[in-house]
Amino acid sequence: MGPGPSNPYPEVTAALTFPVLGHLDPRFLDVLDETCRRLRKVFQTENALTLPLSGTGSAGMEAVFVNFVRPGDPVVVGVNGLFGERMCDVAARVGADVVRVDAPWGEPLDPSALVSAHPAPRIIALVHAETSTGVWNDVAAVGKVKGDALLVVDTVTSLGGMEVLVDAWGMDVAYSGTQKCLGVPPGLAPLTVSDRARSRLVERPTSWYLDLNLLARYVDSGAGRVYHHTAPVTMIGALNAGLGVILGEGLEEGWDRHYRCGKLLQDGLEAMGLELFATRSHRLAQLTTVRVPETLPDGMDEAGVRRALLDRFDLEIGGGAGKLSGRVWRIGCMGHSSRRVNVLTCLGALAEVLKR
Amino acid sequence: MGPGPSNPYPEVTAALTFPVLGHLDPRFLDVLDETCRRLRKVFQTENALTLPLSGTGSAGMEAVFVNFVRPGDPVVVGVNGLFGERMCDVAARVGADVVRVDAPWGEPLDPSALVSAHPAPRIIALVHAETSTGVWNDVAAVGKVKGDALLVVDTVTSLGGMEVLVDAWGMDVAYSGTQKCLGVPPGLAPLTVSDRARSRLVERPTSWYLDLNLLARYVDSGAGRVYHHTAPVTMIGALNAGLGVILGEGLEEGWDRHYRCGKLLQDGLEAMGLELFATRSHRLAQLTTVRVPETLPDGMDEAGVRRALLDRFDLEIGGGAGKLSGRVWRIGCMGHSSRRVNVLTCLGALAEVLKR
Repeated sequence: MGPGPSNPYPEVTAALTFPVLGHLDPRFLDVLDETCRRLRKVFQTENALTLPLSGTGSAGMEAVFVNFVRPGDPVVVGVNGLFGERMCDVAARVGADVVRVDAPWGEPLDPSALVSAHPAPRIIALVHAETSTGVWNDVAAVGKVKGDALLVVDTVTSLGGMEVLVDAWGMDVAYSGTQKCLGVPPGLAPLTVSDRARSRLVERPTSWYLDLNLLARYVDSGAGRVYHHTAPVTMIGALNAGLGVILGEGLEEGWDRHYRCGKLLQDGLEAMGLELFATRSHRLAQLTTVRVPETLPDGMDEAGVRRALLDRFDLEIGGGAGKLSGRVWRIGCMGHSSRRVNVLTCLGALAEVLKR
Repeated sequence: MGPGPSNPYPEVTAALTFPVLGHLDPRFLDVLDETCRRLRKVFQTENALTLPLSGTGSAGMEAVFVNFVRPGDPVVVGVNGLFGERMCDVAARVGADVVRVDAPWGEPLDPSALVSAHPAPRIIALVHAETSTGVWNDVAAVGKVKGDALLVVDTVTSLGGMEVLVDAWGMDVAYSGTQKCLGVPPGLAPLTVSDRARSRLVERPTSWYLDLNLLARYVDSGAGRVYHHTAPVTMIGALNAGLGVILGEGLEEGWDRHYRCGKLLQDGLEAMGLELFATRSHRLAQLTTVRVPETLPDGMDEAGVRRALLDRFDLEIGGGAGKLSGRVWRIGCMGHSSRRVNVLTCLGALAEVLKR
């Protein structure tokens, strides 16, 4: 129950053992096509260019800036946590003129501040669900007023765990990771690109590995396959299985399950006298930040509490990231881990460890 | 029995089902440390900076050029196949002044031509085992006379399947892939960097995801871990298991097994009257290129032969890549697939399909 990786769905673990197929085997290409179709449903998009990238969520972030930014392009980035910070770093490395718009960690970004930060940005980028703070940002509000800019959204911790409507909210590019609410081990970055964004792809980006022009020629079954790199076939099969579980449960039912588990956890934590970090109106359910209490049992620091949970209860929760290091714990209820029984176990174990 | 992915070792498939651990869980960090130690043995190196990158072999290639090339740096690349060509493309994208040294496809590179191509190259790069042609290049000979240049070697198709001596041959950077002779599904790129090369790392490369300065702070257990990206824990566990199988069998025993299976296959193909493509003196055992015969059974083209093998015998062999497309088949005997029984099945099935 850390901030990810979550436990994989049993169907996903089973899929990892399926025979390894060649990356050009027609049976594997059927799996790949199905994975892309399922990703479109989970992203709630009609985007033709929707695929799993062969790297973790951070590779998804990098792919966006590498493929859409030319040196000097103004890029507005909302920063209210570690992953907004990371976006600034990644964008700057490919030469973006980064315009940051900050909000305090624990608070949401102000959509109007994002939109007014630059008169003609090439990209407005923000994180939907900040894994470092437990706060969600209002993507739909930015989408309504984004103008000519491309709206780029990090959905690593939101996809599958809460409403994510790529088309309806006006996102142009969204990427995610497999190891959070999709219930699949880490290793792939689902990505979707609108036709509008696609027409603005940089022609020959600095990265060959993440070059979307080349990748599109492999994943696009219509245009004939062109080999790019050896697709990670086993992980793609696992992702396909995870998406099958999610669509089988029903997208809205899954969002609701994540909401109810998170609420149960948060109510329980508050009932124990612990204080939640994220501002109430924009609190994520799937990732909860808890302030570390000022007094802990004798001889224990915050890392000691986490170690005791791991050693005594085989239960992982996360420490704070970036400037919240040492100040909060992060508890995930994501994917297959988002179960009532896990929440109750976590609350009980935490009560036991914090007992004086 | 295509050019990869090969079949994974059973121990690898089992490892894919192990519980998913957090990327900062002490038990996972033990697995990561063990994986790095095992990689050093398989690479035959003492290099401290030895790790699995979170992408396929092509990400390994990109990581090298991204981390060691500044715009304008002269980079000599040996090209006698598709992956040498790819090196030129990847290096040029990060601004290298690429000096290519060609040899005919099917023939080895000339080490002295590589060394004399530029008076002071920053890098001399070549592919050890060209998957597109079935030819090995003499890395040791280049290592002896490389001078001040960094020797960069692609060992994607050689590592685990033939002698690869990183330190003894004077390699500065070597990368590989998991899905060939290591017998692990595709998805990771083992990489090793000499201390000499390490002192020449570009400080803030265009890629954040592949930035070796940052990655070293996560994998280096001595210096304290700094989180970079969520490590693909399941695939790393699988790689660790595959390396365990290889070291359990014995490195030299594994090389020998690959050699004997390849030889059995090649002798059998020639006995059937088929012609091998790679020049005899530099022929790989683990990857065999066969010329497509001029006459095939009625109504069949070369792709039809491959499809018949797949449909009738559940057996994959590869087509030609790049300019050898349509002219050769590529048959792999790698990792767990490198077994006498597979070779005999392949020869029998091919004889059956080619029967008039």
